[in-house]
Amino acid sequence: MRAARFHGRGDIRIDEVPEPEVTPGTVKIEWCGICGTDLHEYQQGPIFCPTPDHPHPLTGECSPVVLGHEFSGAVVELGQDVNDLLVGDRVVVEPRMVCGVCPPCLSGRRNSCHKAATIGLQGGGGGLAEFVVVDRSLVFSIGDLPFETGALVEPLAVAHHAVSQAALKPGQTAAVFGGGPIGLLTVCMLKARGAGKVILVEPSTTRRNLGIQVGADHILDPLSQDVNEHIQSLTAGYGVDIAFECAGLNVTLAGCLAAVRAGGTVVNIAISGHPLSVDMLPVVLKEISIIGTICYADDHQPVIDLLRCGSLSVEPLITKRIDLANLVREGFETLATSTEKHVKILVHP
Amino acid sequence: MRAARFHGRGDIRIDEVPEPEVTPGTVKIEWCGICGTDLHEYQQGPIFCPTPDHPHPLTGECSPVVLGHEFSGAVVELGQDVNDLLVGDRVVVEPRMVCGVCPPCLSGRRNSCHKAATIGLQGGGGGLAEFVVVDRSLVFSIGDLPFETGALVEPLAVAHHAVSQAALKPGQTAAVFGGGPIGLLTVCMLKARGAGKVILVEPSTTRRNLGIQVGADHILDPLSQDVNEHIQSLTAGYGVDIAFECAGLNVTLAGCLAAVRAGGTVVNIAISGHPLSVDMLPVVLKEISIIGTICYADDHQPVIDLLRCGSLSVEPLITKRIDLANLVREGFETLATSTEKHVKILVHP
Repeated sequence: MRAARFHGRGDIRIDEVPEPEVTPGTVKIEWCGICGTDLHEYQQGPIFCPTPDHPHPLTGECSPVVLGHEFSGAVVELGQDVNDLLVGDRVVVEPRMVCGVCPPCLSGRRNSCHKAATIGLQGGGGGLAEFVVVDRSLVFSIGDLPFETGALVEPLAVAHHAVSQAALKPGQTAAVFGGGPIGLLTVCMLKARGAGKVILVEPSTTRRNLGIQVGADHILDPLSQDVNEHIQSLTAGYGVDIAFECAGLNVTLAGCLAAVRAGGTVVNIAISGHPLSVDMLPVVLKEISIIGTICYADDHQPVIDLLRCGSLSVEPLITKRIDLANLVREGFETLATSTEKHVKILVHP
Repeated sequence: MRAARFHGRGDIRIDEVPEPEVTPGTVKIEWCGICGTDLHEYQQGPIFCPTPDHPHPLTGECSPVVLGHEFSGAVVELGQDVNDLLVGDRVVVEPRMVCGVCPPCLSGRRNSCHKAATIGLQGGGGGLAEFVVVDRSLVFSIGDLPFETGALVEPLAVAHHAVSQAALKPGQTAAVFGGGPIGLLTVCMLKARGAGKVILVEPSTTRRNLGIQVGADHILDPLSQDVNEHIQSLTAGYGVDIAFECAGLNVTLAGCLAAVRAGGTVVNIAISGHPLSVDMLPVVLKEISIIGTICYADDHQPVIDLLRCGSLSVEPLITKRIDLANLVREGFETLATSTEKHVKILVHP
């Protein structure tokens, strides 16, 4: 079968690889993937992809690894003992394998597993291949949802988990700093979960406009507007209840700390490659909580429920559709050269 | 009457000033104070003390201001309409005046008041004077507690509030980074409120030993021990539930982030004069909550209750007793030159 594999920085190839086979307790899925977060790996990697020098501690695999952790598909074969799915069922995959025995796993925080491996990045096959075989426990039915929508469940689960970390109460105000894919999905998720005013802070005009399409009540351009003055004015001088840091910069984290009310919460979603310079004084004086969030755990089902009841309008974020054969040229290269214009590019089998 | 007043950096004088008079709703108190946190003002001030160029926005006062915000005393006169106290009652004061009308005040977070003024630092008299007159609402009876113990209620309220911010559950493990006065009182408070293992990290031998006297189960010297290796070993590799940052340094904040378990909490008590360099990666990967804490609000009464039932052993932290006349030479100068040896120096009237 054909599969997109990461060989090294700037080197992703569509390879012919053996078809994976079902084993007891697994499910074989024919895919429909999204090309998005793998971009960093293509441009700056290997970041998460294991190298021959350092095979992944959980999967034992190293490059070339199959890519694609955001995907949906149809069940084509069921392994022994899998009796609660049918061939043809539309499904999505929670692409995280965990060790199950480290302190975080044992204390119910599997998303912080010391050895966690992401399927489609660190071994175990991936969504950007004709077929993938995964453990039944990682598979979620999406009913009659379109495959295209299903392919967005994984990044939506990241946003769902981030909003859960913030313990959002209906009606609360929020600011999202950074309108990349996760920032925009967070805007969308906030509105679906009952947030009041949602303010998106993002320099790109295209992305600000997408923000409006997925539910932002206000958009601010940090390059031409005094962001904090506007946020304080929009919240009668109280500040927002919650700010989401989706950019990983000194200036955006400082913006979050300035934006929140006394007792407010800053959720740090972004992963920054270097230490940030943080003025802790507002954290102390306003008694802010800065909360980290990573991936998801028990978030896929609620996301599917929200999609099925029509609460999430994510279609505007699928900005292009391509074939697997054109993944590099029309997918990664397009994302790399026009990040402003594209959010999620759907890859059809 | 005599009062210790801050005139400028390195310039604290025992001045003769007019005795304050009671007005309706106020209480006049004869004092017994502690010389502690004012040290920073003496050495590096004015930090919090208002200057003639910038009178305090709430009190309208500027230097010279009377010092002393940690004190207890006896009621000597009651203003009109104060009917629930008696002359002679032993009391302590919550030395924070707030505006009552800013967003934090209106949303029940008066300790983050935009204009908050500390009595004994920013106007309104202070504890290091023969008498002080304060609003009834700031006065708390301590029953038959000794004045010396009462003088520690204010810094204990800081520790009480910090532990409340952490939402400590009985039996949880904690690490305290920095064994200054607040760090040591936090150790003491953690044990009183049911913490399990409490680990104090502090380079001074004297202070580590004081830590043991106030309840620390383990002490670690960051200059000669691998702190995180020991903390992980003391917690079976899970990490502590809560870490308290009581030093305000890059290295101690990083130590806190390394020390806590997945889903753990870091409470930032220290106030740092400059931005810190923070690696946010552990915050994200372990989903840590960093929570700021400032002063107290509704913490004085529970502290008094804990002292009265004998749960807090703070006596070892009173390391010297002096007279007001000797405040500068035996108080501030002693603290400045032997910070290792002294924690709280009691100033008798």
